[in-house]
Amino acid sequence: MTNATEDGALQRLYDDFAAANLKPLWTEIGNLMPEFPEPAAQPWHWAWADLLPLAERAGDLVPVGRGGERRAIALANPGLGGRPYATPTLWAAIQYLGVGEVAPAHRHSQGAFRFVVQGEGVWTVVNGDPVPMRAGDLLLTPSMFWHGHHHASDVAMAWLDGLDIPLVQRLDAGFFEYGDDGIEDKSTPQRSRSERLWAYPGRRPLSALSDSPNSPLLAYRWAETDASLTAQLELEDEGSPGVFEPGHAAIRFTNPTTGRDALPTIRTEMHRLRPGAASSTRRTVGSAVWQVFRGSGTAELAERRFRLTEGDLITVPSWAPLRFEAETQLDLFTFSDHRIYEALYLDREEIVDEARR
Amino acid sequence: MTNATEDGALQRLYDDFAAANLKPLWTEIGNLMPEFPEPAAQPWHWAWADLLPLAERAGDLVPVGRGGERRAIALANPGLGGRPYATPTLWAAIQYLGVGEVAPAHRHSQGAFRFVVQGEGVWTVVNGDPVPMRAGDLLLTPSMFWHGHHHASDVAMAWLDGLDIPLVQRLDAGFFEYGDDGIEDKSTPQRSRSERLWAYPGRRPLSALSDSPNSPLLAYRWAETDASLTAQLELEDEGSPGVFEPGHAAIRFTNPTTGRDALPTIRTEMHRLRPGAASSTRRTVGSAVWQVFRGSGTAELAERRFRLTEGDLITVPSWAPLRFEAETQLDLFTFSDHRIYEALYLDREEIVDEARR
Amino acid sequence: MTNATEDGALQRLYDDFAAANLKPLWTEIGNLMPEFPEPAAQPWHWAWADLLPLAERAGDLVPVGRGGERRAIALANPGLGGRPYATPTLWAAIQYLGVGEVAPAHRHSQGAFRFVVQGEGVWTVVNGDPVPMRAGDLLLTPSMFWHGHHHASDVAMAWLDGLDIPLVQRLDAGFFEYGDDGIEDKSTPQRSRSERLWAYPGRRPLSALSDSPNSPLLAYRWAETDASLTAQLELEDEGSPGVFEPGHAAIRFTNPTTGRDALPTIRTEMHRLRPGAASSTRRTVGSAVWQVFRGSGTAELAERRFRLTEGDLITVPSWAPLRFEAETQLDLFTFSDHRIYEALYLDREEIVDEARR
Amino acid sequence: MTNATEDGALQRLYDDFAAANLKPLWTEIGNLMPEFPEPAAQPWHWAWADLLPLAERAGDLVPVGRGGERRAIALANPGLGGRPYATPTLWAAIQYLGVGEVAPAHRHSQGAFRFVVQGEGVWTVVNGDPVPMRAGDLLLTPSMFWHGHHHASDVAMAWLDGLDIPLVQRLDAGFFEYGDDGIEDKSTPQRSRSERLWAYPGRRPLSALSDSPNSPLLAYRWAETDASLTAQLELEDEGSPGVFEPGHAAIRFTNPTTGRDALPTIRTEMHRLRPGAASSTRRTVGSAVWQVFRGSGTAELAERRFRLTEGDLITVPSWAPLRFEAETQLDLFTFSDHRIYEALYLDREEIVDEARR
Repeated sequence: MTNATEDGALQRLYDDFAAANLKPLWTEIGNLMPEFPEPAAQPWHWAWADLLPLAERAGDLVPVGRGGERRAIALANPGLGGRPYATPTLWAAIQYLGVGEVAPAHRHSQGAFRFVVQGEGVWTVVNGDPVPMRAGDLLLTPSMFWHGHHHASDVAMAWLDGLDIPLVQRLDAGFFEYGDDGIEDKSTPQRSRSERLWAYPGRRPLSALSDSPNSPLLAYRWAETDASLTAQLELEDEGSPGVFEPGHAAIRFTNPTTGRDALPTIRTEMHRLRPGAASSTRRTVGSAVWQVFRGSGTAELAERRFRLTEGDLITVPSWAPLRFEAETQLDLFTFSDHRIYEALYLDREEIVDEARR
Repeated sequence: MTNATEDGALQRLYDDFAAANLKPLWTEIGNLMPEFPEPAAQPWHWAWADLLPLAERAGDLVPVGRGGERRAIALANPGLGGRPYATPTLWAAIQYLGVGEVAPAHRHSQGAFRFVVQGEGVWTVVNGDPVPMRAGDLLLTPSMFWHGHHHASDVAMAWLDGLDIPLVQRLDAGFFEYGDDGIEDKSTPQRSRSERLWAYPGRRPLSALSDSPNSPLLAYRWAETDASLTAQLELEDEGSPGVFEPGHAAIRFTNPTTGRDALPTIRTEMHRLRPGAASSTRRTVGSAVWQVFRGSGTAELAERRFRLTEGDLITVPSWAPLRFEAETQLDLFTFSDHRIYEALYLDREEIVDEARR
Repeated sequence: MTNATEDGALQRLYDDFAAANLKPLWTEIGNLMPEFPEPAAQPWHWAWADLLPLAERAGDLVPVGRGGERRAIALANPGLGGRPYATPTLWAAIQYLGVGEVAPAHRHSQGAFRFVVQGEGVWTVVNGDPVPMRAGDLLLTPSMFWHGHHHASDVAMAWLDGLDIPLVQRLDAGFFEYGDDGIEDKSTPQRSRSERLWAYPGRRPLSALSDSPNSPLLAYRWAETDASLTAQLELEDEGSPGVFEPGHAAIRFTNPTTGRDALPTIRTEMHRLRPGAASSTRRTVGSAVWQVFRGSGTAELAERRFRLTEGDLITVPSWAPLRFEAETQLDLFTFSDHRIYEALYLDREEIVDEARR
Repeated sequence: MTNATEDGALQRLYDDFAAANLKPLWTEIGNLMPEFPEPAAQPWHWAWADLLPLAERAGDLVPVGRGGERRAIALANPGLGGRPYATPTLWAAIQYLGVGEVAPAHRHSQGAFRFVVQGEGVWTVVNGDPVPMRAGDLLLTPSMFWHGHHHASDVAMAWLDGLDIPLVQRLDAGFFEYGDDGIEDKSTPQRSRSERLWAYPGRRPLSALSDSPNSPLLAYRWAETDASLTAQLELEDEGSPGVFEPGHAAIRFTNPTTGRDALPTIRTEMHRLRPGAASSTRRTVGSAVWQVFRGSGTAELAERRFRLTEGDLITVPSWAPLRFEAETQLDLFTFSDHRIYEALYLDREEIVDEARR
């Protein structure tokens, strides 16, 4: 065959592939199977100082109720085509609830949590259990648990919502059901029933010996999270083990029935760096969102550098090197999809540059 | 505010959202969180009679070697935007290797298997272990195992490749390494070393007591698969338990170190229906590909009905009801992503209409 | 053969069996393989009013130190041939330590805990971590953890020691090592380092993501145990789930890295009955020891009935029906070997008579 | 106090301890908690040449039937006080069944297996499934599975029975039920139904996706055991991994639903040494029984040395160093309690002297 004949034959073959809904590997293997992850998602930064006013304007203009369901404003990673995805698997949004407002009950296969940067006064009612929300608390609404919120205080409240919406959408695994339009139980107890049963370290109710994939403890209060981080740093001062790395305390929120992640698709952690401390530079397969709870510092993420203050959020794409430096004491909440990779044996992590004392 | 003012304010809010890389939930919740899975992937059918000639033409026109790596032609589900994805998580391709050809060694984090519809004569060399490929065999090349192929017989050969490429791409978890351009060990043993160590039911080498996520048994030969299905139907004839449902024998390929799926991201199974038998109508969260190994029949899939003969393939989107009817004895190979859903506690299955004797 | 000839032949056979170190099954199968467990151990009761004075006399007469190692006085179940075994698997002893005394450090493969009925002032130093002991606390000294005790207060102290000595002896699995004769760290902190790292419900240090068979939390304080039981009964008052059965709250002490028993061979639990409440009558394969922590009541155990007051102990043989009745609020600590049966798939339990409201 | 007064006071204290069913630790700690295991069981040897004639004489003199249940003659370790215990946890017996005889059906919580040194012609009917018994086969009758035997051939047959009777007796966990006096199904198929469902490596019936603690595969045939050992030695000849140590092939019998031991309380393995090869000298916590299946050699066990020929048995106490030397090719079956120690985290093993090529 001449080259021209061959080219023609090849073109006809490719046309026939297309007509038959086929695609050759050899023309796009580099794109499909890169040598290293080449995420479309970008390292990005959202300032709380920008987010909160926008949420407040939404509070004035957009009612909350059945249909729209929640006044939640999602981070849309600029690399992900305008979709409301913080990363390819994670949804992160600011949810805003005004005084007296009610977000009606529903449930869905997507797992969810709330993390409260500031404020209080909202109760999220999870499977009928009213759970108060306050600054620093992590609140769970696991897959297929009914949940609605109501505001019983006198100042509007905003918090971070994290879900696995992009993952579940990609996996075509979404189920959604509407509950009552209102909230059945508008009582405002200081502790949820889930805490009264489960918030005692190492004491397991004899009535609940079956393991569950989702934590039965639905609220992780700031007081105990703070105490656990404080203790790690004090132990470091005394020369005892405990911190994650020098000057860096960290805990993972876990399910007391298994010791594993509190939610099976979303890892949640709280980190604290001493003033002036820096973390190792790490890269991890999978994506994450970090939010500053208290303090200020800097994130070095891939080739970018973000200044961080209270409430600020960043998105971490897969395999992007990440390092934090604290100016003041820096408390960071993070959620990620890393447990998924562990469950599928796709996890990988590398310390690019180790933290030193 | 007048309506017009309000509309203007709302529009400005939405513009400001967009400028800040934010997206409201309330305008697209139905799309993001549907009541039931609404997969973009379509129920589709590819006839072997179409695929094989195209693969042969590619054999004439496209060399195989480093760069393109493999002469693999992928099913591109028409619902997935022209991407070479059989389903949102699964890659399925016809790979074609001519007499004397060599597919050079590489390895990658994507897990893979080969299933052989017809022919023989190729050896896939997996981590240095030459594994012969013959009709009806399932051959594994797990995540990060080196593998290359060479053809040592006198007739070109085509087979089905299954991988988790779309999943790993979506998760930004892809790592890829090139190996030797040739194949180190071109010997052509009748059995791989992996079989010589592991293909004895319930006998575990004392030198290999650590569990591994991927099966150390790299080849599941047709003779034993066939025998296992035959035995189930004979037991049914005798009134003993064993078949999956009336007239329907089925086995799952498993990892002998754990009893779980042979690969951690791809479930593989072989099914056999008696002539005239029909399966239950089931729907399952997650997607699958089925290929006819032997026989003919019909698949009812969502609103569609496909006539099936040897080598034909269909794609099954999430939650689509599926039912098979056998004309002759019908042997079906299938691979799916269902283990992923189990690992993430997102699995769900429903029998829409139960098979009867 | 005549009967006499046969009898003679049989007798010669049995003699030859004996000479060859053989034993026939058929002459003793009923003893070896009874229809139901026929434990040699007896239901028995030890009164704290008897135990404590004896321990005090031992305090006057017997020094504590290297060699004897501990001033521990063991319950010797009258059915177990005078051996210091509370049950066939469990050791239970009163340990007594005078002001200023030191029990020297050692470690062993036997697992151990302390439960404190009254008093305080002793620190048990576990792998170098000083752990204060106070009334109502459960303190762990797991298998192969170094431990010694010293008394830093001004009143002698007595507590319950529980170990798996009989089990480990029967299994010929005992290893024992001597440590320093004194106690390295005689500091008297209010909390052990293990608590400072682990006593926050659901917060797992990121520095300790590997699971361990023994709980890394070495002290379970009464305040939290008490609060957990109180909460269960309050939830019952409100009509919410939580109690083990009507009027009966109960928790199991668990390992926060797994959610399973705090020790892999000894199950530990705390139970509380409301005044006037009674438990179900249950029988369980395996044996247990119960000690009254606070309150008074009655135990019905097999055919016996024991009146119980503070500090009293009873032993529960396998499969013996057991029921408690509370006069006052009755707080009961128990330890058992039931986890062993679960691990070996020999567990069985039966509710003979269900508790009612 | 004078010494005499003190001695008197101490004696009174000890008397009062005895009266109160108490025992001090300090007078017997060395016995209770030795530095290393001090097993009462002895290293011992039983010659098949002695056992078989005794079993035959029992066959003439003792009928088999309901009441005695089995014509089984147990190894009574001379260190264990005349009890029919091979080791503190294991029962090992020769069972003998004459032509046409029937051992009636029963079931019990004790787990059991048969291993056949020579002969054939008996079917053991396990939960209604007739399982043929032939030389080299391992046959399971797991805890609470109904089982009886009948002899359908023309030569009497003897085999090894292994059970966990001493363990279950010590744990007071024995339950026993009588079944039909005869054997319901006296058919004599060449393969059991359990094999027809499960004896295909890595093919799991879709009808049986729940894991079970006991292997659903009830027969492990010699042909495949032999082939697996042969293959390991051939791989060694080729320079490939596979053998347990130089010249020493070994497999463990495992449960295909989990990859773990075939029975949860009894580990079973088959070992093969090349002519002239020797194993490492190992000691392991826990006890074992070894039986020569084919060949001859020597066992060095603690301070003793036993010459071994076909059918001979030895008992291995806890922590006793053990080494084998093969004269001819030496095939050894072994069963042990080591899984129990793993389940309880009491396992420990030491290579005293490593095998060399």
